[in-house]
Amino acid sequence: MNDYVTKSRLLTEARRLFADQGFRGTSVRDITSAARANLGAITYHFGSKDALYAATLETVFGDLAACVEHAARGPGSPLDRLEAVTRALFAFFRRTPEAPQLLLHQLAGTSKLPAVAAPFVRRNLAAIVGVVTEGIADGSVRAVDPTLVAFTIVSQAIWFAVVGYQIPATVGLDASADDFATDVEAHVVEVVTRFLVSEG
Amino acid sequence: MNDYVTKSRLLTEARRLFADQGFRGTSVRDITSAARANLGAITYHFGSKDALYAATLETVFGDLAACVEHAARGPGSPLDRLEAVTRALFAFFRRTPEAPQLLLHQLAGTSKLPAVAAPFVRRNLAAIVGVVTEGIADGSVRAVDPTLVAFTIVSQAIWFAVVGYQIPATVGLDASADDFATDVEAHVVEVVTRFLVSEG
Repeated sequence: MNDYVTKSRLLTEARRLFADQGFRGTSVRDITSAARANLGAITYHFGSKDALYAATLETVFGDLAACVEHAARGPGSPLDRLEAVTRALFAFFRRTPEAPQLLLHQLAGTSKLPAVAAPFVRRNLAAIVGVVTEGIADGSVRAVDPTLVAFTIVSQAIWFAVVGYQIPATVGLDASADDFATDVEAHVVEVVTRFLVSEG
Repeated sequence: MNDYVTKSRLLTEARRLFADQGFRGTSVRDITSAARANLGAITYHFGSKDALYAATLETVFGDLAACVEHAARGPGSPLDRLEAVTRALFAFFRRTPEAPQLLLHQLAGTSKLPAVAAPFVRRNLAAIVGVVTEGIADGSVRAVDPTLVAFTIVSQAIWFAVVGYQIPATVGLDASADDFATDVEAHVVEVVTRFLVSEG
């Protein structure tokens, strides 16, 4: 097995295990056995378990920021692109369930956003703020605080990723979890659009 | 020390310790020493550590549901009362930082809302749905899905409780954490009102 394959397997297994069990609940041996690597492989490729954890968070937050930036740069009006950003966040969390799990473990353990997350949070914010600012400049969006718009989009997408699929069963809704997910995504788009749209 | 005082102290210390360290990270001895009770006091008053944990969640979720119901029953129009509910949630989390911590520990450990939370989640939902439904009936609120309105209010308030105070430092905002909190609360009220208000 070559070095590149080993390194990539370590990252994949670390992501899964840290998401399931948290940083402290996951041993170096858990990760190396799952990746079928020798016990020294983490030190060799990453330097330490801490550095592997940071690398794991970087891949997850980096993918998220790339999705948001891609949607923010897409075609259409600023309102269209804010819809695309909202839908990109929901889609990212749908296909990356480790992301909210990693965040929950981190926050439950330390109550802090990890330091390594800060540049990615800033990239997400900058992407959304850029589109809102453009909409304000061309008159399609009201003069609102773009940072607060980012909060409204991101907070609802994350909280939905964290507990959303459990809501129908918890509150006794008729809708299936998947139908509810579709409804919530469309609803958040509408909430954001109604907040932003200029009065005629 | 009489029985009532011991029981109440056990609940107070359990709430603080479970919020800081999670269920598994907190021992029976941690709680009884902090409460200056004997080691058998938890069994005597609650039956088990599991039952004490459930009782702790019940007090926290019960307080939250009572706040939401109180605001929903208050004076004013349906839109006024939905503003009151939103502000009540922000105020509750401000004065009860253990609430989001307990929730994070629970979700990080099991990815599930605790079974004991379900009746309280239903009470919060019913209170908000009731006010929205009343507003639809009297024509002051558009014909929207009241459950999705509840999601928009609660998700933003909870996510703000979880990481909101760290946002200004993380993204390099000028605002102090307290000013940002005030801005976010007013913003969420405006987001909800704009979503609900009837045209014309």
